[in-house]
Amino acid sequence: MPAGDMYTVSPIRGSTKGTETRTKQKEFQLVQVKNTWCCVDSGQEFPKTWNEDQVIVSPAKIGETITESGVSWTIKTPIYFVYKVIETQDLLDPNNLTLLYGHVSDPQEVEIHQKKIQKRLVVMDMTVEKLYGSKVRKYFEANNVTYKILALETTEETKSMELVLTILDEVHKFGIDRRTEPIIAIGGGVCLDIVGLAASLYRRRTPYIRVPTTLLSYVDASVGAKNGVNFCNCKNKIGTYTPPAATFLDRSFIKTIPRRQISNGFGEILKMALMKHKGLFELLESHGKFLLDTKFQSRNGLASHGDAALTTTRLAIQTMLEELAPNLWEDDLDRLVDYGHVISPELEMKVLPALMHGEAVNIDMAFMTYISFESGLITDEEKKRTIQCMKNLELPVWHKDCTFPLIKKALGERFKHSGGKLRLPIPTGLGTAGRCYYYYYYYLKALKSQSCW
Amino acid sequence: MPAGDMYTVSPIRGSTKGTETRTKQKEFQLVQVKNTWCCVDSGQEFPKTWNEDQVIVSPAKIGETITESGVSWTIKTPIYFVYKVIETQDLLDPNNLTLLYGHVSDPQEVEIHQKKIQKRLVVMDMTVEKLYGSKVRKYFEANNVTYKILALETTEETKSMELVLTILDEVHKFGIDRRTEPIIAIGGGVCLDIVGLAASLYRRRTPYIRVPTTLLSYVDASVGAKNGVNFCNCKNKIGTYTPPAATFLDRSFIKTIPRRQISNGFGEILKMALMKHKGLFELLESHGKFLLDTKFQSRNGLASHGDAALTTTRLAIQTMLEELAPNLWEDDLDRLVDYGHVISPELEMKVLPALMHGEAVNIDMAFMTYISFESGLITDEEKKRTIQCMKNLELPVWHKDCTFPLIKKALGERFKHSGGKLRLPIPTGLGTAGRCYYYYYYYLKALKSQSCW
Repeated sequence: MPAGDMYTVSPIRGSTKGTETRTKQKEFQLVQVKNTWCCVDSGQEFPKTWNEDQVIVSPAKIGETITESGVSWTIKTPIYFVYKVIETQDLLDPNNLTLLYGHVSDPQEVEIHQKKIQKRLVVMDMTVEKLYGSKVRKYFEANNVTYKILALETTEETKSMELVLTILDEVHKFGIDRRTEPIIAIGGGVCLDIVGLAASLYRRRTPYIRVPTTLLSYVDASVGAKNGVNFCNCKNKIGTYTPPAATFLDRSFIKTIPRRQISNGFGEILKMALMKHKGLFELLESHGKFLLDTKFQSRNGLASHGDAALTTTRLAIQTMLEELAPNLWEDDLDRLVDYGHVISPELEMKVLPALMHGEAVNIDMAFMTYISFESGLITDEEKKRTIQCMKNLELPVWHKDCTFPLIKKALGERFKHSGGKLRLPIPTGLGTAGRCYYYYYYYLKALKSQSCW
Repeated sequence: MPAGDMYTVSPIRGSTKGTETRTKQKEFQLVQVKNTWCCVDSGQEFPKTWNEDQVIVSPAKIGETITESGVSWTIKTPIYFVYKVIETQDLLDPNNLTLLYGHVSDPQEVEIHQKKIQKRLVVMDMTVEKLYGSKVRKYFEANNVTYKILALETTEETKSMELVLTILDEVHKFGIDRRTEPIIAIGGGVCLDIVGLAASLYRRRTPYIRVPTTLLSYVDASVGAKNGVNFCNCKNKIGTYTPPAATFLDRSFIKTIPRRQISNGFGEILKMALMKHKGLFELLESHGKFLLDTKFQSRNGLASHGDAALTTTRLAIQTMLEELAPNLWEDDLDRLVDYGHVISPELEMKVLPALMHGEAVNIDMAFMTYISFESGLITDEEKKRTIQCMKNLELPVWHKDCTFPLIKKALGERFKHSGGKLRLPIPTGLGTAGRCYYYYYYYLKALKSQSCW
């Protein structure tokens, strides 16, 4: 390099073989001039003949190392992910254009889209379709959109690659503009995960929209980049890290879900509270039952601070976003959001469908609370408050199949994929977290004390 | 935000509804203190109580907009992809540790890996397994590696999600450390594409290694991030943009491929030459036949410049990397590497298996060369030299099924996914490129002149 010169490649192989290793290293930046990218030595100035207005410099870099066995190139290039999480009201009101254009930042672009007939493929959970299908149809008809609704049974049991291929087949037959017509998913976490994977695979990335309809997906699946399906009876073994173009949050969907599913959602909210937000924990302690009873529909509840439901969901999302945004592809293995997610995947899949996701997560957290107490990281009072809060939220703190062999297997599985360093997030107080190493002793002791829960 | 304070969330909904829209915008940077990420107003200094050594600042940002319908968050976060493309010799010589550790940059890390028994799953094309299977076995046995070889028929016809699931099943049964034991693919482009997709899906991203064994995959599939499979009779409709951990280039594999496959590889090399490197074009003109005859195995051929085979492949890779690295996820639709890839996907899939990929690409390029000439962008002399060079490389310049309806369909398909701006790369000389808009007139004229090719 630069490749622009002919025959600058020197004949490295052959004669130098067997002699002492000489290594030459260089780094190039990438510059676009007249439609064409070229490598420029990072230390070098641009030629004076280049008009600076017509030059684009990329953040990508190419390193070149020349040794006696040849050239090796190291390509470093950032991909910028941008996505939106938007609170809205009356999402399915035909006058609210969020569902159609909420993901577009530029108002001029919206105007361009509005000039032509839009197409939208909507994948809905079957139960959600029964409740909201006719409203969705009316919405698109009122907005003159060509649409297709695909209603699927989306449960942990059907969460498979097969269902992803079914969606892909429909996307392909329906035909959408891969740049401007996002696939819309309306449903719980399983539905959002399956559609997310289908969209991220179609033409290597087709934008998609998440509309969570359960409390759990509202605060959890809706905010991150992960998608996936189960494989060989293992939870989410296949998937990608492709964020949606946008997530639209309308709390009114939560009113139609059963009480148990509200508790289920509390599992993930409590996780964020215990790991990093004492205020949120106290809010769950004081208003958890009120929120369960009102299904997050009340617009008040906090004597001097307004809306308890809004405050709870917003804090859950903010704390979750804080942890996810800097680690979107999970390169950092130390993740507070993994609290409650060490034993629970194994347990959830084993007893399927006996435990819901948030319930399994809570059992895991309850167990870790005991470990934390046994390790001297939290006080007896903090342990009791935590377990009591879980019970008030109507979450299970134990399950008969959460046996020592299962816990050992789950930890072993986790250890295998942790690059030799198993460090688990653990509460060190109400709303503060630390790392816990893999001490069998404490696990055993915690397990023994289960009888007193 | 900051979520660290309790009840900072103001009750936005309700009272302000129906009044004038007030929008408040803020941007937060993400800072990790004591295991926990938190949002800090971008304009604000860090609290003095924070020990600067223990603070990590993320490049991710969260924007927050408060309007009367609620909060909307915009998450912007870069993911840094790093991968290596490494020339090596005698890759399957047990003393060459490139295949095992070439993807690891840190020598200390290599030492750690060497201390424990390594596991490697190797997916090979069936024909490649017949030729090199026993060498691969000896390599791993000599290095005391637990391995499994999966030999698959990898052709355009078998390039499907089904085969990806077969691989995933084997990966799952075999069990590898998702952080340190990359899946190895040895074969042509189809094999590398299928394995790349399987790896990028397994546990949402498992590292993989590409070892190209054909000239085409050596200069093309080996350098970029794309992987994929065919779907509904459409080429590479399903896939991802996940680069390998590393590609290992050993030119000696090319000696066992048939002459027609060498021509096939020339298709992609010629593409880069025509788009951006006159020197490479002249090298193909002068040494194309020599390289065909010697199958890229000769270590000389250039009177005063050494190795013709090395120079050709290296320039092809360098020019390709220059274009791919700044646009790894193909966000920019103006891509020189798309030259020859507008009509060819349609043609290749239609006549399957009559035309190989590089052959279909060449027919597309020949057609565009005529368009360029008809548009007055290249001279008659340049057109003739281009076509003659293609013929010398034993590449087809026409196919009876490349009809006007097929071309129209291919362009229509392309137009549909180009965000309303169909701009195709086109030669404006030997080794320089421009953009061509979608002029039917020139296409028609070019088509008519096919009789004289």
